[in-house]
Amino acid sequence: MDITKHNFYEELDNILKAIEESTFLSIDGEFTGLDAEGCSHCAPFDTPSERYSKLKNGSTDFLLLQVGLCAFKVDEGKRMYEAKPYNFYLFPSVPHRSAPDKRFMCQSSSIDFLVSQGFDFNKVFREGIPYLTAEQEHQMRCFLEQKHSEQSNQSFSAMEIPENQREFMEDICEKIDAFMAKEDAEPLEIKGCNGLQRKLVYQTVEEKYPLARLETKTGENKERYLLLHGAKNSEELAKIDRERQAAEMMELDIQVGFSKVFQAITKAEKLVVGHNMFLDVLHCIKHFHSSLPDDLEDFKSLVTGVLPRLVDTKLISSTPPLKDFIEKTSLGELHEALQSKPFKPVTIKTAPGFERYTEEETKLHEAGYDAFITGSCFATMCKFLGSCQKPATDFLLPSSSVIKTFVNKLYLMRIADIQYLTLDGPDMEVNRDHVFYVTFPKEWRMSDLFSLFEPYGNIQISWLSNTSALVGLHNKKNAKIAFEALSKEKGLFHVSSYAFYHRNKALKWSA
Amino acid sequence: MDITKHNFYEELDNILKAIEESTFLSIDGEFTGLDAEGCSHCAPFDTPSERYSKLKNGSTDFLLLQVGLCAFKVDEGKRMYEAKPYNFYLFPSVPHRSAPDKRFMCQSSSIDFLVSQGFDFNKVFREGIPYLTAEQEHQMRCFLEQKHSEQSNQSFSAMEIPENQREFMEDICEKIDAFMAKEDAEPLEIKGCNGLQRKLVYQTVEEKYPLARLETKTGENKERYLLLHGAKNSEELAKIDRERQAAEMMELDIQVGFSKVFQAITKAEKLVVGHNMFLDVLHCIKHFHSSLPDDLEDFKSLVTGVLPRLVDTKLISSTPPLKDFIEKTSLGELHEALQSKPFKPVTIKTAPGFERYTEEETKLHEAGYDAFITGSCFATMCKFLGSCQKPATDFLLPSSSVIKTFVNKLYLMRIADIQYLTLDGPDMEVNRDHVFYVTFPKEWRMSDLFSLFEPYGNIQISWLSNTSALVGLHNKKNAKIAFEALSKEKGLFHVSSYAFYHRNKALKWSA
Ligand SMILES: Nc1nc2c(ncn2[C@@H]2O[C@H](COP(=O)(O)OP(=O)(O)O)[C@@H](O)[C@H]2O)c(=O)[nH]1
Ligand SMILES: Nc1nc2c(ncn2[C@@H]2O[C@H](COP(=O)(O)OP(=O)(O)O)[C@@H](O)[C@H]2O)c(=O)[nH]1
Repeated sequence: MDITKHNFYEELDNILKAIEESTFLSIDGEFTGLDAEGCSHCAPFDTPSERYSKLKNGSTDFLLLQVGLCAFKVDEGKRMYEAKPYNFYLFPSVPHRSAPDKRFMCQSSSIDFLVSQGFDFNKVFREGIPYLTAEQEHQMRCFLEQKHSEQSNQSFSAMEIPENQREFMEDICEKIDAFMAKEDAEPLEIKGCNGLQRKLVYQTVEEKYPLARLETKTGENKERYLLLHGAKNSEELAKIDRERQAAEMMELDIQVGFSKVFQAITKAEKLVVGHNMFLDVLHCIKHFHSSLPDDLEDFKSLVTGVLPRLVDTKLISSTPPLKDFIEKTSLGELHEALQSKPFKPVTIKTAPGFERYTEEETKLHEAGYDAFITGSCFATMCKFLGSCQKPATDFLLPSSSVIKTFVNKLYLMRIADIQYLTLDGPDMEVNRDHVFYVTFPKEWRMSDLFSLFEPYGNIQISWLSNTSALVGLHNKKNAKIAFEALSKEKGLFHVSSYAFYHRNKALKWSA
Repeated sequence: MDITKHNFYEELDNILKAIEESTFLSIDGEFTGLDAEGCSHCAPFDTPSERYSKLKNGSTDFLLLQVGLCAFKVDEGKRMYEAKPYNFYLFPSVPHRSAPDKRFMCQSSSIDFLVSQGFDFNKVFREGIPYLTAEQEHQMRCFLEQKHSEQSNQSFSAMEIPENQREFMEDICEKIDAFMAKEDAEPLEIKGCNGLQRKLVYQTVEEKYPLARLETKTGENKERYLLLHGAKNSEELAKIDRERQAAEMMELDIQVGFSKVFQAITKAEKLVVGHNMFLDVLHCIKHFHSSLPDDLEDFKSLVTGVLPRLVDTKLISSTPPLKDFIEKTSLGELHEALQSKPFKPVTIKTAPGFERYTEEETKLHEAGYDAFITGSCFATMCKFLGSCQKPATDFLLPSSSVIKTFVNKLYLMRIADIQYLTLDGPDMEVNRDHVFYVTFPKEWRMSDLFSLFEPYGNIQISWLSNTSALVGLHNKKNAKIAFEALSKEKGLFHVSSYAFYHRNKALKWSA
């Protein structure tokens, strides 16, 4: 079901209920870009904390334009699930001046890609649901509460009316007098005042017109103007105040928008499934919860507080026993593979009103559809894992201990020796004695590195710049002799250990 | 006339001809944003070089999505113009890997604004014309030329085939043998190789198959694969090479796209008119010509080389005698004002095929329309300036000396004492002895500053931070006594001269 700002509030209760009642949830996001200029976000010898920094700094200034959320509810008797896939269009529009005016990055190739998938940019920009982080919401709420409690706005100090504003102010007072004398007049618009004049009008109204209330509005051309409300008596004035305060709180509420759904996900503490979901998680936290900390350990505590049970289907499908039957783990290919032997796809029925997606007609790269089939893959992989148990179970629930081994581990793309990030504990320690830091003249190509390491067998190269690279030996047994021979050689190149490289890098950063 | 990548090449000759034959040109741009977070791009006491830096650093990471270009051709006999307004949709898509993958910024409020004006984002992303700077084009052309001249690719050094690739390579060779034996076979696709394997295939083909040619292609899912062409004899091989080289040059040409139009504008040396055009000029240079220099003086020489005759209608309308008759100078309001007394609008006829715009039906904020009415305003203002001459002329050509005083001056928004940037000479020197640099506690508000300066009359405040501001006296005569009194006072605040502030700032920057 497509959700835009036009049907968001109509559907919100249903969405919250679907989350609450679900057995598990699955999510997916579509972004305006993937990596900043010149910062590829993955290299084969990244450590988890290097990978986190790269993604945080290079990949999260882009925007989430679409979030897919699918709620799966088990029917244990029938051994099937009912799915409610939602496809949210998101955009942080700026309806009034107190809403944040977000700057964000786009990447041409990602826009191209979305266009090629039929993504509707007009719809997302026009009808996208806004959102705020909890931090932003809190700030704005405090600001409004303070403003509302200071009925008389004591915080504004009065100033003397400057010479050249006297005539202007006399004029305004005449107009206000006339307005206050009328009965049941529509609020008075006072246009064309600059900031100073608006301030003077405010202070004059507060001094001289106890039954009038001012507010600043933003017009069609973004120009600011004043709106003056008049009351007959103090009860009516109080009513005007109450109504305005309620309207302002409502505006804030609308601005919180999609973050309400995210907050409900946090609160429900359900298992949340994603496919290769590290970037999705970063974006969700950054846009809907709070800014990302610099340190990986702080990030881990943050995530486990906000999304306490995450499961990555890319990790499950890349781990034995599934790994042995699945060649390619991109979402589309995984879903395909799970349709045939040795797998038995779990029946998923979309709930009434959610007929837009079927497993037969692919809508890959639409976030709602991707979330839908991610959850479906998860269910089928659970079933398969159950069938591998001794004794075998025919229908394994996500709450099973078999699945627990995958919880709170996020798949790390293209790192040879560290497959995942552990969210609720320390990461795996890996030995990289077979990896070397090599510097060389800028004329060197891949083949020069291959020649250099030829005696020690095949290598994996990760370029750091045009004069340096990390080089890993496939045959780890050769690590010692390679290091002993090469680190001593003095020539065009220089070989040092991975440990040395890392120490130096840490020093540079802390300096 | 809307121009997208679908009709660009069809219309290009007509566009170039319209530029060549024009009496003057007008331009306008629509951007994805205006200013970076926390960097408002104009303050009342900016110097021209401060303003340039702010715009360069804070406003040009956004993208130009639409450029309006209108060619006006005079009919002196009939005292009217014929207009050809073009509305170009632009987007730097990435059709193949050698094209640059641009990262760019967007600003929510600007996207909102374009959406509210009915801007079609799907159209621009899907059908936008690409562009390259002259620098990028030059680089890519050199690269291709070098590649094409090195028929045999001597630059790639051969490497030994690593152990674990031997089987793979034998397999490939068998396939290639079979392929080369066939007659008139379609080129052979070799998929699923990584970078190392592609390199090995390349070197093997170069060594063993003199009548075969390889190329690397990018597939639908952005995966790289090899395509092998086979020739019967060396003539056919040469033909394959020629065709491929021509295709690559053509691809580059397509990527140059809209920059061809910009290059033609440069070459034609016509008067180019814009409304409040500083930002348009910056964007055009940056996207279609070259990166922007840090220094204002370097920027001036760059612009006068690329767009040697610029005229800003906002400046003309803000300068007497026009100023005395025009209250508001935003484009729409200016156009409106010029329709009635004392002005006599010049007749503008759109050329056949360009009927999309009429002066009656406004399409404000569509770049083509805005360029159209900018030129129309310019023509009418010229006419008015002619009527003010002694003796009066009824129809003043843009080449008249009356207009020369406006050439190469760009309007500077919201600077009180410097109205324009002079492109072909030094900027006006202004005295700012009446401006003070004031620091104060963070609790201070506008009214505290007003109180502080109360004895010296009205002031203009430009906040620098929450504890500092530039304050200008309206009454310059009071500058000396104010400075003598306030600079000596020791209290919560500190007042120093504008000159002192500027010296300090320059020191900080050069440090
Ligand atoms: N006395 C008084 N001054 C106000 C009030 N609200 C805003 N102002 C002042 O009026 C001026 C204009 O404020 P506003 O119209 O909100 O526009 P902004 O400053 O551009 O956001 C500012 O100097 C504010 O400090 C108010 O409720 N009472
Ligand atoms: N011998 C030879 N090697 C090539 C040639 N073109 C590319 N290579 C090498 O093949 C490898 C793969 O190149 P390519 O397929 O263009 O993919 P890319 O490196 O990902 O851009 C690289 O190591 C290139 O240096 C060629 O014409 N001849």
